[in-house]
Amino acid sequence: MAADRIRPYIRKTPIFTSATINKMVDAEVFFKCENFQKVGAFKARGATNALRSIHPGQLTKGVSTHSSGNHAQALSWAASLAGTEAFIVMPDNSPKVKVEAVRGYGGCIFFCEPTLEARETTLRRVIEETGSIEIHPYNDSRIVAGQATATLEMVQEIDNLDLIIAPVGGGGLLSGTALSAAYFSPGTRVIGAEPEAANDAWKSFHEKRFVPSLNPQTIADGLKTSLGSVTFPIIMDLVHDIRTVDEESSIRAMKFFWERMKIVIEPSSAVPVAALLEKIPEVRHSRVGVILSGGNVDLDHLPWAGHAKR
Amino acid sequence: MAADRIRPYIRKTPIFTSATINKMVDAEVFFKCENFQKVGAFKARGATNALRSIHPGQLTKGVSTHSSGNHAQALSWAASLAGTEAFIVMPDNSPKVKVEAVRGYGGCIFFCEPTLEARETTLRRVIEETGSIEIHPYNDSRIVAGQATATLEMVQEIDNLDLIIAPVGGGGLLSGTALSAAYFSPGTRVIGAEPEAANDAWKSFHEKRFVPSLNPQTIADGLKTSLGSVTFPIIMDLVHDIRTVDEESSIRAMKFFWERMKIVIEPSSAVPVAALLEKIPEVRHSRVGVILSGGNVDLDHLPWAGHAKR
Repeated sequence: MAADRIRPYIRKTPIFTSATINKMVDAEVFFKCENFQKVGAFKARGATNALRSIHPGQLTKGVSTHSSGNHAQALSWAASLAGTEAFIVMPDNSPKVKVEAVRGYGGCIFFCEPTLEARETTLRRVIEETGSIEIHPYNDSRIVAGQATATLEMVQEIDNLDLIIAPVGGGGLLSGTALSAAYFSPGTRVIGAEPEAANDAWKSFHEKRFVPSLNPQTIADGLKTSLGSVTFPIIMDLVHDIRTVDEESSIRAMKFFWERMKIVIEPSSAVPVAALLEKIPEVRHSRVGVILSGGNVDLDHLPWAGHAKR
Repeated sequence: MAADRIRPYIRKTPIFTSATINKMVDAEVFFKCENFQKVGAFKARGATNALRSIHPGQLTKGVSTHSSGNHAQALSWAASLAGTEAFIVMPDNSPKVKVEAVRGYGGCIFFCEPTLEARETTLRRVIEETGSIEIHPYNDSRIVAGQATATLEMVQEIDNLDLIIAPVGGGGLLSGTALSAAYFSPGTRVIGAEPEAANDAWKSFHEKRFVPSLNPQTIADGLKTSLGSVTFPIIMDLVHDIRTVDEESSIRAMKFFWERMKIVIEPSSAVPVAALLEKIPEVRHSRVGVILSGGNVDLDHLPWAGHAKR
């Protein structure tokens, strides 16, 4: 299974707690720190699982993907570890620190316009030219199974969680979280947290049909993508609810978390923290897990810069 | 002893490692994360030890100190826990986040000019008015014994350290580190790391006489103070060497650390990291402990802001 397959390569990340936050929300909260994961995000799990599921003989021409950042880093890193190439299609407005990190892990970057259409067209061209195998950032059951291992680790370490909150972009992490909860901790509900400004999962979930976001603008750059054909059905089946948070709440939550917890989380991780603090009153008197998806931030462009009063 | 006295109140902080940093310096490095300590800094140890060494009957009129920040927070917090008052004299240019934190822990602040003379005069007046007991930030053997517990924890957890690097301001942490190394891990050398711009310890150590810094300017606001009559002799006796780092190196080290390790360290903690990376070539092929003193940073005024190219 995925957990065994990826164990030699990834980190079993620590779980942090905070007396201050527990008091604020009147609950016991456990933060699964995927910001300390290899490449700084949970994406290392999915990428490693997908890559290690392919027969090495088929990997000679490399792997490829389009990604706004963390999956790109993760796939580059995992490919490099496995001795093959990663071809990465990235939107040309990706944070500088993520572009540099992909290069640092040995990924070969092709820039495109920051639209889903441009990404897909460019990726088709790259695959034709290189003969590489596509590893989609989230709409792939091997990716979902890899991401699921974060929650597996958490429920193995923390008993009787009433609820787990995970961010939702394309839904790879959220559907993996829901699968692990359903299999390994059936009493645990799962709630997705999404930026209001990229609320395709919230809309799709409540309208019970796929409603994509078109070029959404949010500081949570990892959550701009829309659900896919693999992730949406799992989320409809196994996720209890989806809550949205506005940009100001996410920025406030991110800054608060840095100040109090002394750990660097990226905007996409601030979204479930903001949901915990403001949008899920039913956490009261319960045991709550929160998945901090990653810690890759451009320190030269922090979202509160120029807003010193926040 | 101090460790037993403070155990119910303080945190046994985790030790972090980084394959990247190990590779960069060709050594095995262990970071003692006092940024995760109560109040965000090792100062919680000394303040708790000093306060819990005083008979409760003598504490009724409170405690007082002058401090540029972390000791102020720590004493306010420890006093509040012990059910007494803390009167804090702070320079009026202290970072906003530290002032607010002192207030948040219930400390009662008296502002003064940012000179040692103004601090001492104001404190004398406060003590006269309140009848409180002074707890000096570092020149007090109970404080030194408290700070020493960080290194005790580290050498209990990590065998055979060749070297420990600690920042030096007033010398409470460095002399405590040296005492713990001498008693509990006699094979371990201790090196102090100091900002070039506040190099009184370096000068005093090499000239073998006390040479104070007068109003030094450095981003490492916790390291502006000069050694004292309690700390200087211990440092002369037990510390192997002191190395200085320039401001640019500290800023670079701080940013690098946030980016790679995903943890928030304050400028005073970046100083030993910068020393590790640039000024202590003899770490090569050895096992090195680094004390990260704290994580209290004003996120609205990061030292690299406006210098995006760094």
